[in-house]
Amino acid sequence: MATPDILVSEVGPRDGLQSIARSMSTGAKHRWIRALAAAGLREIEVASFVPPRLLPQMADAAAVVAEALRIPGLTVLALVPNLHGARAAVAAGAHKLTLPVSASRAHSERNLRKSPEEAVEEVRRVLALRDQSPRAFGVEVGISTAFGCTLEGRVDEDHVRRLAVALAEAGVDSVGLSDTTGYANPAQVRRMFRHLIADLGERAGGAHLHNTRGQGLANVVAALEAGVTTFDASLGGLGGCPYAPGASGNIVTEDLVFLLESMGLDTGVDLAALLAARDVVRGALPDEPLYGHLSDAGLPRGFRYARERAGRPAPARPHPAGRDA
Amino acid sequence: MATPDILVSEVGPRDGLQSIARSMSTGAKHRWIRALAAAGLREIEVASFVPPRLLPQMADAAAVVAEALRIPGLTVLALVPNLHGARAAVAAGAHKLTLPVSASRAHSERNLRKSPEEAVEEVRRVLALRDQSPRAFGVEVGISTAFGCTLEGRVDEDHVRRLAVALAEAGVDSVGLSDTTGYANPAQVRRMFRHLIADLGERAGGAHLHNTRGQGLANVVAALEAGVTTFDASLGGLGGCPYAPGASGNIVTEDLVFLLESMGLDTGVDLAALLAARDVVRGALPDEPLYGHLSDAGLPRGFRYARERAGRPAPARPHPAGRDA
Repeated sequence: MATPDILVSEVGPRDGLQSIARSMSTGAKHRWIRALAAAGLREIEVASFVPPRLLPQMADAAAVVAEALRIPGLTVLALVPNLHGARAAVAAGAHKLTLPVSASRAHSERNLRKSPEEAVEEVRRVLALRDQSPRAFGVEVGISTAFGCTLEGRVDEDHVRRLAVALAEAGVDSVGLSDTTGYANPAQVRRMFRHLIADLGERAGGAHLHNTRGQGLANVVAALEAGVTTFDASLGGLGGCPYAPGASGNIVTEDLVFLLESMGLDTGVDLAALLAARDVVRGALPDEPLYGHLSDAGLPRGFRYARERAGRPAPARPHPAGRDA
Repeated sequence: MATPDILVSEVGPRDGLQSIARSMSTGAKHRWIRALAAAGLREIEVASFVPPRLLPQMADAAAVVAEALRIPGLTVLALVPNLHGARAAVAAGAHKLTLPVSASRAHSERNLRKSPEEAVEEVRRVLALRDQSPRAFGVEVGISTAFGCTLEGRVDEDHVRRLAVALAEAGVDSVGLSDTTGYANPAQVRRMFRHLIADLGERAGGAHLHNTRGQGLANVVAALEAGVTTFDASLGGLGGCPYAPGASGNIVTEDLVFLLESMGLDTGVDLAALLAARDVVRGALPDEPLYGHLSDAGLPRGFRYARERAGRPAPARPHPAGRDA
């Protein structure tokens, strides 16, 4: 079985749910995650290990991780803001932890209540935990506000570059770049990911792009040219952008997968099953807007998946298991 | 004064209005076209010269062209389906005519009631009119369904290539490619425009892209790489896509200009003035949805136009004139 060309890392159950006011029931989260995995998504960021008083939507993080671990072949990712969260995520059994480090000082202080230097120190503590742990798990960092900041405006590209190198040298497995604010443009995305890959080699991570100003998939094209092979996305663009009504936050998984497959890049994802997973979200959160174009327009006549066009066998897919699967 | 890097050719008053059921008053069309020109758009497709019984929205085409000609510096473009329409558009004074030729036989027969060969013959008749005319005017062709067809599915790329060469050899000034159906993907757009530019040189025309499946600006990035410098777009994505509710048809001019300027490509367009032009459309067609992300999210903090970053003087702009300008 060939490995798909591109890893689409679904962040809806974490980033999407974290950005909206209403909570989703634990059972609905399970059904949603199973539906995503059944569509062929191989990596899902399922929860955030933060204090429940700050994000009550994530109070069931350990239970969500435990249930997701029952899906064979699925990589279960959890966001952790600090060592305390990392310990809880590791205890729950997450395969990989992802930590945010903000390139913008103002954003870091407002969102993480830490300076960027303190955030890097927190990453070092999590790396020490990993190195002492009897169970292997991965540690990733996404550098937020890497392309600009709503508080500071322009973010110095060389500063981002140095931050990424420092994190990789500290032992982070994979350092990606996040357009937290929807400020990125394709010329910048191409340039910055080329630098990241040149500087970090195999430790260069993926692209976390937002569609706040409609530029999300345009930035994906630029990142592909730079050599990026991992993209975060959220089913239905769930989460939106609180200060921009009508503007989705994360890029929409369905539209991303359609883009990649149309370009001849195998994702291992089945679009009909992915579109069907929207029903789970709609049923659980009937008042939340879901975004995306493919869901309205449907697949083009004569559409073929990249693997069909290349005559390749279909990739192995995680088969969801669970009580009501 | 430096010439802008990219020509954004606004098609809303033709393509947008042609795609919706309601008609806009002639006075509102004038105000809209003047607002677009005041924002720095240098070329506008203002009308279609078709029989009023087929498209009553375009019954005032000659009056709209005449008024648009009063705006200094503006290139006034008109769509004409045949020689009869071309004669009327030339009599009205249009600077350039654009003719559709469909790559798909089924689409050509359904939409133009002509085979592709007959459509090419019609173009030859218009070229003969041009060559005999005492007044100089341009003749462009956009090859519709160049990237795929809702009736036929896949369209052979070599067929499109031969059609473009035949049209250029017949004497068409500029042959562009149109993604009429929202089927194009960036890999295909890059490949086909590279071929077009290699085959046609200076007669290679622009990209007319739709956003039906959310891939519009992603395709722009690919076309830019191929060397395309002219892009059609519609203010607010007016026109939508009748079979895909919520999916805009044409790419949104505001989001396109923001993309290009962010990438350091000068368009000569002022985004605040462009966003203000939406009010004219909203006032005249209050029930028509307007699309676009920039209008919701606004410009990023610290945003600078390409010409500001390059230290270039602002380009000359057409200054709208008219009764209520």
